Amino acid sequence: MNFKIISTDGSARRGVIETRRGRINTPSFMPVGTHGTVKAMSPDELKTLGAEIILGNTYHLYLRPGIDVISRLGGLHTFMNWDRPILTDSGGYQVFSLSAFRKIEPNGVHFRSHIDGSLHFIGPCEAMKIQGILGSDIAMVFDECIPYPATYEYAKKSVELTTGWAQQCKAVQNDGQALFGIVQGGMFRDLRKKSTEDVLGIGFDGYAVGGVSVGEPKEEMHEIIYFNGPLLPPDKPRYLMGIGDFGDMLKAVDAGFDMFDCIMPTRNARHGTLFTSAGKTSIKKEDFKYDSGPLDPGCTCYTCRNFSRGYLRHLFISREILSMRLNTLHNLHFYQEFFRNMRTSIEAGEFQNFKAYWETIFP
Amino acid sequence: MNFKIISTDGSARRGVIETRRGRINTPSFMPVGTHGTVKAMSPDELKTLGAEIILGNTYHLYLRPGIDVISRLGGLHTFMNWDRPILTDSGGYQVFSLSAFRKIEPNGVHFRSHIDGSLHFIGPCEAMKIQGILGSDIAMVFDECIPYPATYEYAKKSVELTTGWAQQCKAVQNDGQALFGIVQGGMFRDLRKKSTEDVLGIGFDGYAVGGVSVGEPKEEMHEIIYFNGPLLPPDKPRYLMGIGDFGDMLKAVDAGFDMFDCIMPTRNARHGTLFTSAGKTSIKKEDFKYDSGPLDPGCTCYTCRNFSRGYLRHLFISREILSMRLNTLHNLHFYQEFFRNMRTSIEAGEFQNFKAYWETIFP
Repeated sequence: MNFKIISTDGSARRGVIETRRGRINTPSFMPVGTHGTVKAMSPDELKTLGAEIILGNTYHLYLRPGIDVISRLGGLHTFMNWDRPILTDSGGYQVFSLSAFRKIEPNGVHFRSHIDGSLHFIGPCEAMKIQGILGSDIAMVFDECIPYPATYEYAKKSVELTTGWAQQCKAVQNDGQALFGIVQGGMFRDLRKKSTEDVLGIGFDGYAVGGVSVGEPKEEMHEIIYFNGPLLPPDKPRYLMGIGDFGDMLKAVDAGFDMFDCIMPTRNARHGTLFTSAGKTSIKKEDFKYDSGPLDPGCTCYTCRNFSRGYLRHLFISREILSMRLNTLHNLHFYQEFFRNMRTSIEAGEFQNFKAYWETIFP
Repeated sequence: MNFKIISTDGSARRGVIETRRGRINTPSFMPVGTHGTVKAMSPDELKTLGAEIILGNTYHLYLRPGIDVISRLGGLHTFMNWDRPILTDSGGYQVFSLSAFRKIEPNGVHFRSHIDGSLHFIGPCEAMKIQGILGSDIAMVFDECIPYPATYEYAKKSVELTTGWAQQCKAVQNDGQALFGIVQGGMFRDLRKKSTEDVLGIGFDGYAVGGVSVGEPKEEMHEIIYFNGPLLPPDKPRYLMGIGDFGDMLKAVDAGFDMFDCIMPTRNARHGTLFTSAGKTSIKKEDFKYDSGPLDPGCTCYTCRNFSRGYLRHLFISREILSMRLNTLHNLHFYQEFFRNMRTSIEAGEFQNFKAYWETIFP
């Protein structure tokens, strides 16, 4: 994996990550494919709308269909028929957020499956082994994502644990697979700094900031983004995990982040919430009942080129599968187009104008 | 609308229906688009798999989104972005099968919506008016589809009612819209004959046989198919309503029928039942867990060209939307391909071999 910065505009960076499976233009948004599919989309559609990399969830794939299945079916790319880059998370976040039971040990976490309650154990070594079998292009270290609020004492211990796990992951990094470290530390600046130093000390192909958007007020999140971004080395990709709100992403790019993932465009689409050049809207609106116009007049996606607001409203109310498809297609297209335009704005030295404009659309 | 028979093989016919929106090669299978969408499919996909005509349900569209919406959004073709022919049923079947309450009068039926219990009235005049607004290329007369079993007395009265309604429909046929008559009569040969004579006496652009596959034994159904088919005039399209089982359709083509519609390929797909060149299968099968082969090795559909049985099984078990999409795409492709090959077999004078072969695959 190779990362090159093409141009900068303030702290915002316009870069390219070269991988064995193709290039990723940054800042980049990664659609989330939890169970080996970006919900409602075919791989062909994802390519058409310009997705250059998607995210796969180690925890979910480990539980279902299971690593034995994906292994015997040729790895995640072959399994889901996606030949562009994949980043996998380590499963850490889900072990801590989805599992009803968990017991942390120095070498990992015992937890119960949220599907059938069965007992499992994942630690840094297991997470690396699973991600090796999945065959993702970028793997993430196994970390603890602490809840908000957390005591200083708990956060401090957690950073130590996460650092130890990062060392173990690095020691067993898979051949041909990039590995990103993750900075934690909750809302405590000194712990963020300590975690950053620890992770930089180990040395990774890229650096992620985790543990934000876990329930804290927006102001605190933005402080951490602006504080932690500049601490990361400029010559490696910087990934802000799990953030998909436009206002948050704009600030993060402003703070020097390059990569994002979030379920926002896909989950919102399935619930009828759509992102347009005029802001967020609900396709359920009575106003749209007789509306023959496209959802977003300037949009070039398949949904906007072919269907009316009235039809999209009808499909949603009728709970048709095509509703989820067309809504998801539009939202993901909107995200990809937003990022294309953001990259252009950085190249043109216009990022601050871009940011200011979109902050009025998505306040 | 113009119908031309290109070749025959016994009673089986290979024809072409020319409409203002393009040609329909017969025998033809019409995918069902109940709520203005063939469930899980985009219009582009339907075209790609070779669907030349789809069916729309008057009853469902009348209730949701309502005729006012479809009228103001330019008719059903524009509403759903489908520019090929559409056949609409009259709503009669659904009024009798879906509504909890109904009261039959000489001019139509009072019924309660299965969605919200609201009271409505549809008769021949209303059904024609609604289909006119929908703007389908082929409309169907409003008829009573009686349940099985029914007494001779009830069936006889019902034929009289249906004949009267057919006359009323014919009297208000919409400009530029073909209208098909429907033969009823339950399982009684003399009533079938009477109904056929009545409907032929009125004169339509095509003739349908209704009231089969309503719970009767297969033998009775096949008797009616072979009895009623030859009573219809050879120079008009013959449509056997609601039949999609391969064995039944083969017999119907053998009896001279040209058109079919059924929810079988789409509904089965969503429930994981798939049609292949080796017969019916369930994608849930444990056997498929590690299977890297395509669902149907000879199949050229997007699903079979790109995904393994193991992946399709995983998607189904995970209740992913892509499962419904890929399964539906395959089943509809299989139906279209089956009909393409059936047409070729008739042209080649090989229909009996075709029929015998597929009767062993789908016994």
